[in-house]
Amino acid sequence: MSTTLDPGIGEKFSRRTKRAINHDGSFNVRRRGGPHRHDPYQWLIRMNWWPFIGVVVGFFLLLNVAFAGGYLLLGLNQLAGTSTVGGAGHHFLSALFFSVQTFTSVGYGHVYPATNATGFLSSLEALVGVLTFALATGLLYGRFSRPTARIHFSHSAIISRRADGMPCLQFRIANQRNNILINLEARVLLKTVDAATNDQRYAFLPLERDSVNFFPLSWTIVHDITPDSPLHGLGPEDYARLDLEILVQLKGFDDTFAQDVHARNSYTHDEIEWHRRYVRAYEVAEDGVAVIDLDLLHQTEALG
Amino acid sequence: MSTTLDPGIGEKFSRRTKRAINHDGSFNVRRRGGPHRHDPYQWLIRMNWWPFIGVVVGFFLLLNVAFAGGYLLLGLNQLAGTSTVGGAGHHFLSALFFSVQTFTSVGYGHVYPATNATGFLSSLEALVGVLTFALATGLLYGRFSRPTARIHFSHSAIISRRADGMPCLQFRIANQRNNILINLEARVLLKTVDAATNDQRYAFLPLERDSVNFFPLSWTIVHDITPDSPLHGLGPEDYARLDLEILVQLKGFDDTFAQDVHARNSYTHDEIEWHRRYVRAYEVAEDGVAVIDLDLLHQTEALG
Amino acid sequence: MSTTLDPGIGEKFSRRTKRAINHDGSFNVRRRGGPHRHDPYQWLIRMNWWPFIGVVVGFFLLLNVAFAGGYLLLGLNQLAGTSTVGGAGHHFLSALFFSVQTFTSVGYGHVYPATNATGFLSSLEALVGVLTFALATGLLYGRFSRPTARIHFSHSAIISRRADGMPCLQFRIANQRNNILINLEARVLLKTVDAATNDQRYAFLPLERDSVNFFPLSWTIVHDITPDSPLHGLGPEDYARLDLEILVQLKGFDDTFAQDVHARNSYTHDEIEWHRRYVRAYEVAEDGVAVIDLDLLHQTEALG
Amino acid sequence: MSTTLDPGIGEKFSRRTKRAINHDGSFNVRRRGGPHRHDPYQWLIRMNWWPFIGVVVGFFLLLNVAFAGGYLLLGLNQLAGTSTVGGAGHHFLSALFFSVQTFTSVGYGHVYPATNATGFLSSLEALVGVLTFALATGLLYGRFSRPTARIHFSHSAIISRRADGMPCLQFRIANQRNNILINLEARVLLKTVDAATNDQRYAFLPLERDSVNFFPLSWTIVHDITPDSPLHGLGPEDYARLDLEILVQLKGFDDTFAQDVHARNSYTHDEIEWHRRYVRAYEVAEDGVAVIDLDLLHQTEALG
Repeated sequence: MSTTLDPGIGEKFSRRTKRAINHDGSFNVRRRGGPHRHDPYQWLIRMNWWPFIGVVVGFFLLLNVAFAGGYLLLGLNQLAGTSTVGGAGHHFLSALFFSVQTFTSVGYGHVYPATNATGFLSSLEALVGVLTFALATGLLYGRFSRPTARIHFSHSAIISRRADGMPCLQFRIANQRNNILINLEARVLLKTVDAATNDQRYAFLPLERDSVNFFPLSWTIVHDITPDSPLHGLGPEDYARLDLEILVQLKGFDDTFAQDVHARNSYTHDEIEWHRRYVRAYEVAEDGVAVIDLDLLHQTEALG
Repeated sequence: MSTTLDPGIGEKFSRRTKRAINHDGSFNVRRRGGPHRHDPYQWLIRMNWWPFIGVVVGFFLLLNVAFAGGYLLLGLNQLAGTSTVGGAGHHFLSALFFSVQTFTSVGYGHVYPATNATGFLSSLEALVGVLTFALATGLLYGRFSRPTARIHFSHSAIISRRADGMPCLQFRIANQRNNILINLEARVLLKTVDAATNDQRYAFLPLERDSVNFFPLSWTIVHDITPDSPLHGLGPEDYARLDLEILVQLKGFDDTFAQDVHARNSYTHDEIEWHRRYVRAYEVAEDGVAVIDLDLLHQTEALG
Repeated sequence: MSTTLDPGIGEKFSRRTKRAINHDGSFNVRRRGGPHRHDPYQWLIRMNWWPFIGVVVGFFLLLNVAFAGGYLLLGLNQLAGTSTVGGAGHHFLSALFFSVQTFTSVGYGHVYPATNATGFLSSLEALVGVLTFALATGLLYGRFSRPTARIHFSHSAIISRRADGMPCLQFRIANQRNNILINLEARVLLKTVDAATNDQRYAFLPLERDSVNFFPLSWTIVHDITPDSPLHGLGPEDYARLDLEILVQLKGFDDTFAQDVHARNSYTHDEIEWHRRYVRAYEVAEDGVAVIDLDLLHQTEALG
Repeated sequence: MSTTLDPGIGEKFSRRTKRAINHDGSFNVRRRGGPHRHDPYQWLIRMNWWPFIGVVVGFFLLLNVAFAGGYLLLGLNQLAGTSTVGGAGHHFLSALFFSVQTFTSVGYGHVYPATNATGFLSSLEALVGVLTFALATGLLYGRFSRPTARIHFSHSAIISRRADGMPCLQFRIANQRNNILINLEARVLLKTVDAATNDQRYAFLPLERDSVNFFPLSWTIVHDITPDSPLHGLGPEDYARLDLEILVQLKGFDDTFAQDVHARNSYTHDEIEWHRRYVRAYEVAEDGVAVIDLDLLHQTEALG
């Protein structure tokens, strides 16, 4: 095997690890100890939408229940316009509705603070409320404007054969979005594991082409298995024995976000199909427009 | 023809395609199948202003009509300050106006929620309202702050002749904005189509200069048609037969956005004028300031 | 004179131009004709603070006067809580105050829309109001967060002499801000004008060092006037005859904005002092901290 | 000692300086004189959270107290709904609560401006209020979204020995966050001080590897002390005599912020442990996930 290097993932492990890179681009790594491990902004930016909405609504409820409790402690009779008849539940709801009207700055005014104590508390709540929504504004913008590449990877990599008989490793990608990626660059690494020591070794796999100027359709990334290739002479059982993993790193300039975006993925040995080729995933429509079918991206056929 | 390469647009097509790059920089590509093809943020950021305003107003109306419907379902008598005389239309408008006053957090208070049910619904609406405007804030900022190059391209490319008799392909660009583009780089590709197979071939066209440090005025981009040029020896009828297209890619640093911006355009064979030269598009005013005339950018004259 | 090149400013002019680059980094260029020359976002982002505040207040007044006019047209008796006694001025102010309370979503509610017509108009105004402030939020953020380098240039460049007798062109820069610029790069061009033809010629001036890793203090940028230098053998009267201008371009990574920032400046022939050297602009305080004096940056003394 | 260079920190000092780079990445530099040294945006963005919250609350209080004073000057009887009985303190609080309700656009309406003078003042306050919160929104977003690397550096650098006996300087870093840094590059400089002249000299220390593709776990950065190394043949007492400082500069692409981030640190001679090696800081959990322990990052053991 040719030159080896550690791409920053680590070489010496006490036992076998899971795949290095998951299909969503994350690494199988956890943190322990140390200071400041959690950054609330990054957590709120990267979480999914439904949990995020849950956090926002939960935070809103929590604060309003707390302020409603404060008004109840001061006494509902300090809020003009509320009725002090009815049970505790009714009292709480009166305070809660007043709290929400203050927090969101709706302030209908049929209930209003009639004493200095409620005057101070409602002033504080109004300030907290507008600042909370200022914060929510920033978070919503941060979530939307975070540049992410939506690269669609073929489910499997394949071992195929070129017209001249050269065997090659291939996988295929497409841009899921309508935006244009410019100067897209690919880097592919091979990870193998020594069965005896669990040591992990890495090697770069040279590519037929490692960049394209534009990326409107699909791109089949090809590593020729020349005699110099670390894959030369290996069969499916070798791939399994070496716990082989193909690590893929992509970088390009996104025309909408006007920033560089990155994508990662990997193919483990059981995600590689042998002696296959990809069917063409795009065609030209009647109006002369090229049409890419993202579902066809994964489709392979046996070599002739 | 010299070295060919695929810049990422594709080489093998089942039939002739439209031009690769439109004048607005987009590609003639559609997507089919696959997950998550639409990204609402990118859609809302890239759409024109009038449709965007339509979406915002429509969304505002939709939500307020829905909440107004909710208040009507609960019963208008649960909103203190509304009159229950008058027809259904009047009732609906009363509910709608209360809804808008809650959604925008105006909350005059001459109408207010008099029961727990309307208290809850109006609290929800107030929350939805402020979050909606938080979202609108982010979208408006995202639309304005998206770095885009406003490069003005001459309508036609020309085949001209240098002082030493060397034929050359030229086109001209200017910056429409008052900002300064720094380190502007140009890359020009030639696309030709094989009439028999519809295969598309690409070649880089070397430029007299491929970058300028500053871009305050105009820049005439020149490819010399040397014996090595893929354009050497071709006439207008060859250009048409080859369905020739000149693809232009520009990249520079925008001083206002403080980010790299990109621009694309292309010239098809019928957008190339033969034996012309550009008239000068700038002059020096009395006060010593250089003045560029964007309308003159397109103007050509016959070679002497 | 060695290799000449056009950095993108233009070579052939009908008469002498003003200096190419002003001290604020702008170019002496105007635009005429063409589409979309004005980008309101860029205009609002780059204007000074007082005019910006004027635009905001003016826009606010304009919209509120317009809405107030609308309420007056509908009739003040359609707004409950207003008094219809008093003159036209009083009526207008009543409508204006109601308008502001709606536009800013304060909505005290002592005045409120009593009819469908004013209900619609005030709903529209509430929507316009919140969207206007959404826009203002984006503009304020855009103004503040725009990455700009605050590089302090010495007022004059100098012609000095190194310890080994080599003459050199020098100028000095310092960072006005407390942030750190990283990997700061300098590029210096010489512009000369042919007195007969008004043609402008440009040449790069090689630097003793063209980048520094960090930029916490000051940096003296040095071009050695070797026999190869285009400045070799020229005296002050030659500088004036050639209408010589030294163009400076700086680029570095700003640690606070986390983005590349650029700065430009130029020295014309009458901003170059002969046979001077810079006095040291920093010293070490008692506590071991280096202290740079930005006022000393400009100070030169006669060569010994 | 091999090639020396000034990385931009300065070479000639009138006396010994403190360490060049502090552990938080800042430089020991102060500014004096010159224009515009303070940029309020940068100050508000980089200050800690508690002082920032103090500034926000203080600014809010200041403005509201000022507007409350304005209402008192006009006379509390111009605000309908307030009681003019009670002392000055009660009057002030009535005005203050009305001010807050206007500033935050809550506007309950039990107090409202009853005259033109208070109508104007409350209109102005409503405008100032919404613009203030627009500004706060931008500041909050700017604080959260500012890309910063949270690199955890080992407390000490070590002088260790490779398997082949080669002595080396090492230090270790880990990513505190769960995000991924891509293409992380390290640059290490040696600063030494001439005891006689206080001149500072700098030299690059070549690294075993100066970049990693990914940075999910930890990275031990190694400079081999070959005969060519400026550290060759030096012992602890030499380090102290030379006031030696190891300057570290890191740069990588942050996957969450989608921007380059930088980090700096330094090790002074008393932060270097001799004849030690680092204990392994990560292990593989039962589920095959690599677990890094940030507390173990600092732990060293004696060379065997």
